Order: sequence, then structure tokens, then C-alpha cells
Amino acid sequence: MKNFLRNFILFCTLAFFISSCQHDSPETSTKTAGDSTAKVKDPLPSWNDPLKKDIMDYVEKVSKEGSPDFVPVKDRIATFDNDGTLWAEMPLVQELFAYYRVRKMVTANPALAKKQPFLAVVTKDKAYFEKGGEKALVQLVAATHTGMTEDQFEADAKDFFASAVYPGRNVPLSKIVYQPQLELLAYLRANGFMTYIVTGGTIELVRAISDTLYGVPKNQVVGTTFKYAFVDSNRSILREPAIDLLCDKAGKPVGIQVHIGQRPIFSAGNERSSGDIEMCKFCQGNHYPSFQMIVNHNDSLREYYYQEKDSASLKAAVQNKWHIMNMKEDWKTVFPQ
Amino acid sequence: MKNFLRNFILFCTLAFFISSCQHDSPETSTKTAGDSTAKVKDPLPSWNDPLKKDIMDYVEKVSKEGSPDFVPVKDRIATFDNDGTLWAEMPLVQELFAYYRVRKMVTANPALAKKQPFLAVVTKDKAYFEKGGEKALVQLVAATHTGMTEDQFEADAKDFFASAVYPGRNVPLSKIVYQPQLELLAYLRANGFMTYIVTGGTIELVRAISDTLYGVPKNQVVGTTFKYAFVDSNRSILREPAIDLLCDKAGKPVGIQVHIGQRPIFSAGNERSSGDIEMCKFCQGNHYPSFQMIVNHNDSLREYYYQEKDSASLKAAVQNKWHIMNMKEDWKTVFPQ
Repeated sequence: MKNFLRNFILFCTLAFFISSCQHDSPETSTKTAGDSTAKVKDPLPSWNDPLKKDIMDYVEKVSKEGSPDFVPVKDRIATFDNDGTLWAEMPLVQELFAYYRVRKMVTANPALAKKQPFLAVVTKDKAYFEKGGEKALVQLVAATHTGMTEDQFEADAKDFFASAVYPGRNVPLSKIVYQPQLELLAYLRANGFMTYIVTGGTIELVRAISDTLYGVPKNQVVGTTFKYAFVDSNRSILREPAIDLLCDKAGKPVGIQVHIGQRPIFSAGNERSSGDIEMCKFCQGNHYPSFQMIVNHNDSLREYYYQEKDSASLKAAVQNKWHIMNMKEDWKTVFPQ
Repeated sequence: MKNFLRNFILFCTLAFFISSCQHDSPETSTKTAGDSTAKVKDPLPSWNDPLKKDIMDYVEKVSKEGSPDFVPVKDRIATFDNDGTLWAEMPLVQELFAYYRVRKMVTANPALAKKQPFLAVVTKDKAYFEKGGEKALVQLVAATHTGMTEDQFEADAKDFFASAVYPGRNVPLSKIVYQPQLELLAYLRANGFMTYIVTGGTIELVRAISDTLYGVPKNQVVGTTFKYAFVDSNRSILREPAIDLLCDKAGKPVGIQVHIGQRPIFSAGNERSSGDIEMCKFCQGNHYPSFQMIVNHNDSLREYYYQEKDSASLKAAVQNKWHIMNMKEDWKTVFPQ
């Protein structure tokens, strides 16, 4: 459990004190006037061939009754990672939320600003977290994400999303989702797929926006989960400062089994921290024909350029014949206009 | 965790060595010739007023657009306990499955019959479990429900349900579900409700039959969950001999929060072991108008008569103004014909 918590903290705060360093160029668009008619017919207008064709060929063969590869609707499960797969992760939104919570808590109780770990955040004291390591970070997440009821947390998450602006881009968070993935989610659903988000982020934070941003209802979000306790006196769920499921790496198939109860036939993740390899492997273990995709962040102009040190995700993709989605080449547009 | 496991074991095995003692009378039916037309119009033909009217009044007021009590479809969540609420629990099906697993394991490896806890089951040695207490029972559940992959477990559960016969009644398990509840589930779904099973039983065992018996897909089953581990070498989930969530009492709201992410507006449980009180309280804490129901097993002729020692569930129902469903009076029919 302690190991889980450490990994989670490391995962969530990897970029905590790393300044964002990417270009802030506006997204380019190859759309031209008169595209609208074509878009009605084309479910994936922001995707380029050959990957686009691969996706559509797959979806058609598993959706078409009578096809030798037909998959019944109840088994058409698609699982998408969130950070870096459905929206930008430089920085992680989870990190922005932790900052927001610190600011709010310090405003409500200014004395907190003199106490750690709040003091370190307020004064941007990187050394405190470098020196304090795991213990200081556990303290920060525990202080900002837990210790309140679920209802209170949800109200706070709602407030955060209503006003949050993405650093470096100066846009609301609805503008850092990937337009091509919105098209893909809608296309899969139109073909009978149930689309799930399977995220390393904390489950209730993603649930706060999953329906609005992605059309994914709360009960189709699987994510990192804190321990909960039911409090009889106020009939509420208390969020406790301990992780129940770290929904990353091998935790993703576990979360899928617990929440969905079956293997997906379609999985999409991204390279950065090898967090989605096991989910894709679990998906590929399905007895039905399946499809896996790893997003490669190779687009320094329209999004961000970052690569895994050991290239584990891309190597796994090549080795297992998963599709690599090179953002620079495979997407016509990155962000919604 | 140990406490959890102990409670779970006690829960699952309460009736383990208690002989079933109820009447085996065939279910009575008040249906007469010519009922079929009326049944088409009546969504709850096996229910009697006034409870039937209360249910329908509630469903109508929350489903009718423009009603002051209208609840949007996305928030129309109904949660049903399984054992004793949707099907009979004398004995628990979970218990029958444990026996089945013992028989199967001993057949495959006869030497097991000489080892505990298999020996005690094979020789019906009640004293062994009485004397061995928790330790012996943990050993039995661990040996029969875990230590295999999820795929292997599911195949076994499927085999079990294909051939299982309910003791005392001599019918397949599809005949111990409650006909009125099948009607209620269908009626709620027809009115935009998402129907969930929230069971103290182990999640994957219930998922094996939830769709076939109740029309509830796997991903709408919340239940007691073992620890899972993803095994890279065979890309499978291994079931480990430890409980992750005991989905009973205060564990039910927790399971609901993790899986569904919001409070239900309709909850149904039963008296026997006060397992559904917290679920009903959590439901009643919804800011929308809500409905709670406790099944009272007071029908010794058509089903079984059993009451909680301290009447906690029925007392909680009275105190909180939940509906009590007295099987003898409120149901025209108990089991499907």
C-alpha cells in the first residue's frame, strides 16, 4: 500500500516543479471552406490515413453482423487513458487541482501558509519537496485531496473546472482535449461501443468532467481511488488519505476487471511513463479481434514533444503490433477550434 | 482487512451447516385465464397495492418531464441487493458454489479429499468448521474461490450455473429469482433507470448470471471483490486470497461510490443480517426524491420465514420511513412459473 502511494505520488507529481517548456503555438488546421458537407459523412475528419483507415476497417469488421470478426454489442468495450491520450498532460490537470486546493485552503485559513506543505507551494520552494521526498508529497496530496466528504470534493472539483485556465496556452480545460479523440469516441459509440476512461488520475476528479468533455458518464470512469468510509451520522462518504487502487500500469487491468468485468477489445494509451502497456496487453488477450493504440507525442509545434527515456511504450507497440499514433503525422488538427 | 475477511466469511457461511428447514410448497398463483391482456398494460402484475401504487407513483413523478420531482435520466440510478432481495438465500448460492468447487477439485485430485478443509466438506464434518472457526473457513474460501485466473473462474462459474439445482426446491437457479422483482427491474429500466446489483456476494459469481437472469450487464454489478493481480506472462488477472472490498453494510455505499460515482435514488434490500441499511441511508441522502424498500421474509408457505434477531432492518425502515415489502401480503406470485 505504501509502495502504491509512493508510486501514485511520483506519478502525479512528476512534472510538479518542472517548468513547462513547450511552444505555445496555436494549433494549425488544414480544414478548408466547404469541408462541412464532407465532415457529415466522415466520422473522423481530423485523422489522416493510413491509421484512420486501419481504425475504420477494424470498427467496421467487428460491428458488421455476419462478418467473421463480428463482436456482440455487449462485448464492444473501449478503454482510453486520459492524460496524454484524451487531453494534454503538460502539466497534469491533477497538479493544477492540487495548487488550486492549496490556494483555496490558505485563503480560508491563512495560518496554513506558514505550515508545510502549504508554505512550500505558496513560496514555490522546490527544495522542500526535493528534500522531503515521498513524505512531503504524501502530506500534500493527503491535505488537498482527502479528509472531506465526497460531496464536498465534488463541489470543489466543479468550482475548479469552471475557472481553471491551462498554463502556457491560456485556454479553459475544454480546449486542451484532443479533437481527433472526441471524434473517435463518438464514432465508437455510434458503432455500439461502450467507451470507458481508464486513468491514472484520481477517479472523482475525472468524473467531474467526463460527461461534459467526452460524453463519458461517471460510471464509465475507472481511475485511481482513495479509501472511502461511509459515515453514518451524515450519510456521506469520507475520503481517507490512503490509496485503494493505483490505476496505472498493472493497476489498469485490475481496475478494468473490477469496474467492467471483462477485457476491452479496443484500448488507447500514450507514451510517457509506460502507464498503458499492461492495459493494451490485457486488451490484446481478448479472444475477440482487438485493437491497441499508443499516442506518440512527437508534435512540438501543435502540442508538446516528449519521449519516454527507455521508449518502453513504443517498443511494446512495435513488438506487439499495436498501432502507433504519431500526433504530427496522423492528426490533421490537435485541439478543438 | 483481516476483520473484513472474517466478516465476509461469516456472512457467506452463516447457513453453511444449517440444514434448510423450510416448506417446499409450489408457488401459488392468483393469475386466471384472460390475464394476458391485462398484463401487457400492467408493468407490475405480481405486486399488490398499496405498495405497488407507491412504487408507480414514485417512478411516475421522477420520470415525468415537467414534474416538480423530475430526475434527469443520468441520475436515475437504482441499486438492488441480490441474496434475499432478487433471489432466494436459503441457502446462499455462494455456498452452493463453494461445495461445487470442492467436489470438482476433489474429483480432479482425489488426494485433496484427505486434506482439510476438503475432508470436512466431503465427510460433512460440521465439527471441523465449528472448532476451526475463522481460520478453517478462510482456508475453504481461499481454496475454492481464488488462486486461479479470472478466465478460469468465469468458466467454472458458467459450468456451475448450467447444472446447479436449488436444494429443497429441486429447480434450476433461474427459478429461485423473484418474479415481482424481475417486473420491477424491467419497469424501472423502461422508465430510464439504470438498474444495478449491489451484492455482498462475490462480484464475478453474480456477473456470471446477472445479464441472463436479471437483464443487468456485468458492469452494473457491484459486489465483494478479491484482490486481483495482473500477470504479465499470460496477460491474465490472478484472483488472490484476500478481500479488497467487502460489499456489505457500510461497504455497500463505498462500492456504489467507487463503481457508480453517485448516490442512487432507488434502493432495495432485505432483512436478515442488516446488510442493506447503509445502502438505503446513502440513497436517502440523495438531494433528489428517493425511494427505499426492505423485503420482509414473512412468507413461510411460498418462500421462507426468517427474521433478524434484533429486527434492525425493519426498525430502520420504520424509523426512516422506508417501504417494507411484506412478501406474504405484497406479492401475488413469488417465483416465475
